[in-house]
Amino acid sequence: MNRNVYISNTPLAEAKTRWRDALEAQGFFSRRPHEEVEVDASLGRVTAAPVFARRSSPSYNAAAMDGIAVHFLHLSGASEANPVRLGRDRFVPVNTGNAIPEGCNAVVMIEDVHYASPDEVVLHAAATPWQHVRTIGEDIVATELILPEGHRIRPIDQGAMLATGITRVIVQRPPRAVIIPTGSELVDPVDEPRPGQIIEFNSRILAGYLREWGAEAERHPPVKDDPLALKTALLAAAASSDLVVLNAGASAGTHDFSAHVLAEVGEVVVHGVAIKPGKPVILGRIGATPVIGLPGYPVSALLTMRVFVRELIAAFLGQGTPESPTVEATLSRPIHSPMGVDQFVRITLGRVGETLMATPSGKGAGAVMSLVRADGLLVVPAGSEGIGAGERVSIELLRSQSEVDATAVIIGSHDNILDLLANHLHKRRPIVRISSAHVGSMGGIMAIRRGEAHLAGTHLLDEASGEYNVAFVKRFLAQVPLQLITLCHREQGLIVARGNPKKITSFRDIATGGHSFINRQNGAGTRLLTDKVLRDLGIASAEITGYGHEEYTHMNVAAAIANGSADCGMGIRAAANALDLDFVPVAEERYDLIVPRTHLDDPRVVAILHLIRNGDEFHQAILRLGGYSLRHCGEVVYEQ
Amino acid sequence: MNRNVYISNTPLAEAKTRWRDALEAQGFFSRRPHEEVEVDASLGRVTAAPVFARRSSPSYNAAAMDGIAVHFLHLSGASEANPVRLGRDRFVPVNTGNAIPEGCNAVVMIEDVHYASPDEVVLHAAATPWQHVRTIGEDIVATELILPEGHRIRPIDQGAMLATGITRVIVQRPPRAVIIPTGSELVDPVDEPRPGQIIEFNSRILAGYLREWGAEAERHPPVKDDPLALKTALLAAAASSDLVVLNAGASAGTHDFSAHVLAEVGEVVVHGVAIKPGKPVILGRIGATPVIGLPGYPVSALLTMRVFVRELIAAFLGQGTPESPTVEATLSRPIHSPMGVDQFVRITLGRVGETLMATPSGKGAGAVMSLVRADGLLVVPAGSEGIGAGERVSIELLRSQSEVDATAVIIGSHDNILDLLANHLHKRRPIVRISSAHVGSMGGIMAIRRGEAHLAGTHLLDEASGEYNVAFVKRFLAQVPLQLITLCHREQGLIVARGNPKKITSFRDIATGGHSFINRQNGAGTRLLTDKVLRDLGIASAEITGYGHEEYTHMNVAAAIANGSADCGMGIRAAANALDLDFVPVAEERYDLIVPRTHLDDPRVVAILHLIRNGDEFHQAILRLGGYSLRHCGEVVYEQ
Repeated sequence: MNRNVYISNTPLAEAKTRWRDALEAQGFFSRRPHEEVEVDASLGRVTAAPVFARRSSPSYNAAAMDGIAVHFLHLSGASEANPVRLGRDRFVPVNTGNAIPEGCNAVVMIEDVHYASPDEVVLHAAATPWQHVRTIGEDIVATELILPEGHRIRPIDQGAMLATGITRVIVQRPPRAVIIPTGSELVDPVDEPRPGQIIEFNSRILAGYLREWGAEAERHPPVKDDPLALKTALLAAAASSDLVVLNAGASAGTHDFSAHVLAEVGEVVVHGVAIKPGKPVILGRIGATPVIGLPGYPVSALLTMRVFVRELIAAFLGQGTPESPTVEATLSRPIHSPMGVDQFVRITLGRVGETLMATPSGKGAGAVMSLVRADGLLVVPAGSEGIGAGERVSIELLRSQSEVDATAVIIGSHDNILDLLANHLHKRRPIVRISSAHVGSMGGIMAIRRGEAHLAGTHLLDEASGEYNVAFVKRFLAQVPLQLITLCHREQGLIVARGNPKKITSFRDIATGGHSFINRQNGAGTRLLTDKVLRDLGIASAEITGYGHEEYTHMNVAAAIANGSADCGMGIRAAANALDLDFVPVAEERYDLIVPRTHLDDPRVVAILHLIRNGDEFHQAILRLGGYSLRHCGEVVYEQ
Repeated sequence: MNRNVYISNTPLAEAKTRWRDALEAQGFFSRRPHEEVEVDASLGRVTAAPVFARRSSPSYNAAAMDGIAVHFLHLSGASEANPVRLGRDRFVPVNTGNAIPEGCNAVVMIEDVHYASPDEVVLHAAATPWQHVRTIGEDIVATELILPEGHRIRPIDQGAMLATGITRVIVQRPPRAVIIPTGSELVDPVDEPRPGQIIEFNSRILAGYLREWGAEAERHPPVKDDPLALKTALLAAAASSDLVVLNAGASAGTHDFSAHVLAEVGEVVVHGVAIKPGKPVILGRIGATPVIGLPGYPVSALLTMRVFVRELIAAFLGQGTPESPTVEATLSRPIHSPMGVDQFVRITLGRVGETLMATPSGKGAGAVMSLVRADGLLVVPAGSEGIGAGERVSIELLRSQSEVDATAVIIGSHDNILDLLANHLHKRRPIVRISSAHVGSMGGIMAIRRGEAHLAGTHLLDEASGEYNVAFVKRFLAQVPLQLITLCHREQGLIVARGNPKKITSFRDIATGGHSFINRQNGAGTRLLTDKVLRDLGIASAEITGYGHEEYTHMNVAAAIANGSADCGMGIRAAANALDLDFVPVAEERYDLIVPRTHLDDPRVVAILHLIRNGDEFHQAILRLGGYSLRHCGEVVYEQ
């Protein structure tokens, strides 16, 4: 089969309308299947018909108190001064909920009853008719409405149905979705995939969200890259379900023939929509069963499914457009977006001072962690070329507001300690969440200047003074009252493969041996250190192979070396230790946190500083990483 | 066993502290049991340990696009003017996700590749190193933190774990709760309970909420009123679970010996707390297993469980105090509350105009429907004697904010049509919810005057003019621009038992025959009609047995007659029909809706008026109730 690169660029609204119309013409939205279930098993289901009381509740006149049942006339005139005595023929002991006996029409509370003998009571007050009696139908009368059609059943609703004689209820049947992963390289999760095998996890993510949105979701085993196998799977899925989700096969690779196969057995309504990510999506149908072909990347697949499938499920269930909680926030940096494309941008939120700042985060379509870390989504509509920094934006929340409010924002240099910090703070109560962006030391300083972060991690060596951080803070943050607090001292050096097979002992070896190096980005403290060492040694950057190959964290440098993409790179010992690599020490440096004074009283910052200064377990975990010294940890080394 | 009326009145905070301390001393909160589960089965579970990546993701350098893999140096200098040709030894076709072959370090997108032959490509642009390549660990590097301890697992988190080589995860085991219903009269739900049997539904409600709060809940079969049976059940439940919920047996009735039995096998820490409802609650333990004895009434039981058990579950799981969404609202009428008691008041919310009004609703502890209908809860703290009308209050929501915002508030006279209206509006999209309070016609007029309702139903006969409603609107709502819109004409008359055994044909028969009557409350249109008919006939109210016995709706009157509590009462034919009773017509009356002009454009009111004027199906449903005429339905009969 040939490569198919003919993917249209249909505007989002038009794509939705065309798919909807095609499905409507097939009667998809008027199916409304329903089923009868036991009330006991109906929690969370949606009523498909109004529910009316079969019996009144209470279904008889009932005692509302523990006490005795009487006829109110027998107590007329009773008072403290003039007590009334009733014999056993004129009162009946009752407990709450007991039926009021024939001939009685009031209850006297046990506290007001004085037994002269087991068969005689003395009462000191008159009674009114029907006092302390729950009359028949007080709660609800038979035939009255308990629940309207289209109501999601809560535990209390189950109680009301059972209380009024209803044991079975007619509810909507959720749509059944089948997810078909495609790709010969896909295997179910195993501990150690063989080379060329890719763990199939997209279908698990997709199934989880389909269930959240109200569908039943079934995962089909991965289907090989074979048109016949795909056709067979598609036809079977369409026949047995209300929705088929194909993942992947929507783009233009050699093995992406989903659209061809779907066209043969059904209809491709739209192939290609002007959204980002998600452009190559396929919207189609087989008979009245909608089929969506999602892109292969997890982020694209999930966001595309949100855009198209969530409202389809709601419509199938007769519900309105699903709502997501949103917050208003201030955009911290501009977003550029091509005209004509609806762009979905992952957002990190942080309430820094009074302002909720929204910062665009991870972009990669394959980056699952970027969605794990994201707090929300921002849609840049097709009619816009972008949104400027400082503008107010509406963010669709991906986690709860309270989690966002509990988040401390740390932007700056990467250090492995930040993971430990995040975990130790997350298990305390109330929790503090850490959102950390690794943009290098200078990036952190700029984030503090823009008011985007509570804290910034920095390790910038001032060559003039030989001291870390202070000179940079004075120069770039002169206007910001702040404290500079030491987190740790740490070893920087050359990370090399295990056993150091290339026998690299210095940058001199790298230059003369022609070994490949992997660098850090501009603005990173480690980059500055690298450049200083090179200058001290009189080595030009052009002499270092791979000087222009940049990564953003110590761990990414280590991973590249572990993988053989490079022979060595500059980084901290903890990163080398984590991946079991060798390490050639170059320098020890001080890693500090910049804390603006306005945040020193913030409970999240207080919790962080408390942990840094007093967390024994935390300190031990740091030392286990290797390459750290905690002398002066938590001390204020400079303030302004 | 004797009646036990010695229930203390411990302040709420003290009760919580004493129970907590007693449990803490037994190590209840430090159990923190955990278990390892498949990642596939971990959705919604809470991590009991941090989760670190086992593998990097991606775990190799991967093509980020469909295209060809090349070494960037082989394209140096390529441009439109100076295309470069590569033979089969210098490029490898790759699909998105494929590993980058040895010797390659860049990908050229398929769109930019021109095949001169299957073995030769022509390229018109240079490449940069690692372009369109997802380098190893781009998403996450092995050993980095994926999820901190105490994190609730979402579908995307499952994906991230699987993507990084994790197939099993350590999660907290939820607390196991056993609910023991007690009472010899209790039976499991059946279609037709025999006399004296009470359907046991509380345990279903309680189990539903326990599950919502994060526990596993098991329902024990009902236990008879027998100390030995209760003791056996208690001991078995405590041994096999983390929490025992006893319902009921907390109050002072003859069969309420739960506290005695608990004291024998464990400890009663508190019996009796200064809360309303819920005073007789028992807080205790057997060994380290907490035992709570809830009052028997469903509303008391549920609210008491919310107060004490919800935070216990959260603490067991190591989470903070559970939050409930709250809204700020304006209290529409005063609430009186005894000093020293924390009172929990059910609230109906309605956004009428700009103001979110909170109106105290149903009070009965047995009234399940009052909780079905309630929108929220208001706590009047022990230190307060009440809250005044017009004060701002914080309401804990029992349904979603959007449901509250979709609610039209109808206050006033009861009519069976309102149930039909509620159902028809609830199934349209977007839904409109109806919150209706049946407080009589005059109550509705006052609610409109106070700005508490969008609409009021009224049928008040002005004896001077013989016309309905207009005179009352002019007198009591002179300052309110409004329309009076007819909903229906309906038959009022005497509701009597089936077959009319007492042969009642008029009020004269009631007076002379001494038949028992059931009346409506003051301010109800039906009460006014009754009084007018009596005056016309020259009958004094004292001549009518039961004139002082009042009910609040037509259906409650009908239910009392069906039950034999009274021989007859005044009401609409639809109520008689609903319960299959007989009916003696007395008058036809007009039932109108009062609609302030400010609400005429409100989308909820627009939807209601549209349905009233155009709802064919709705009209047919009304006529099926019997006793209605829809002439002039929807017409404006008066405006000001």
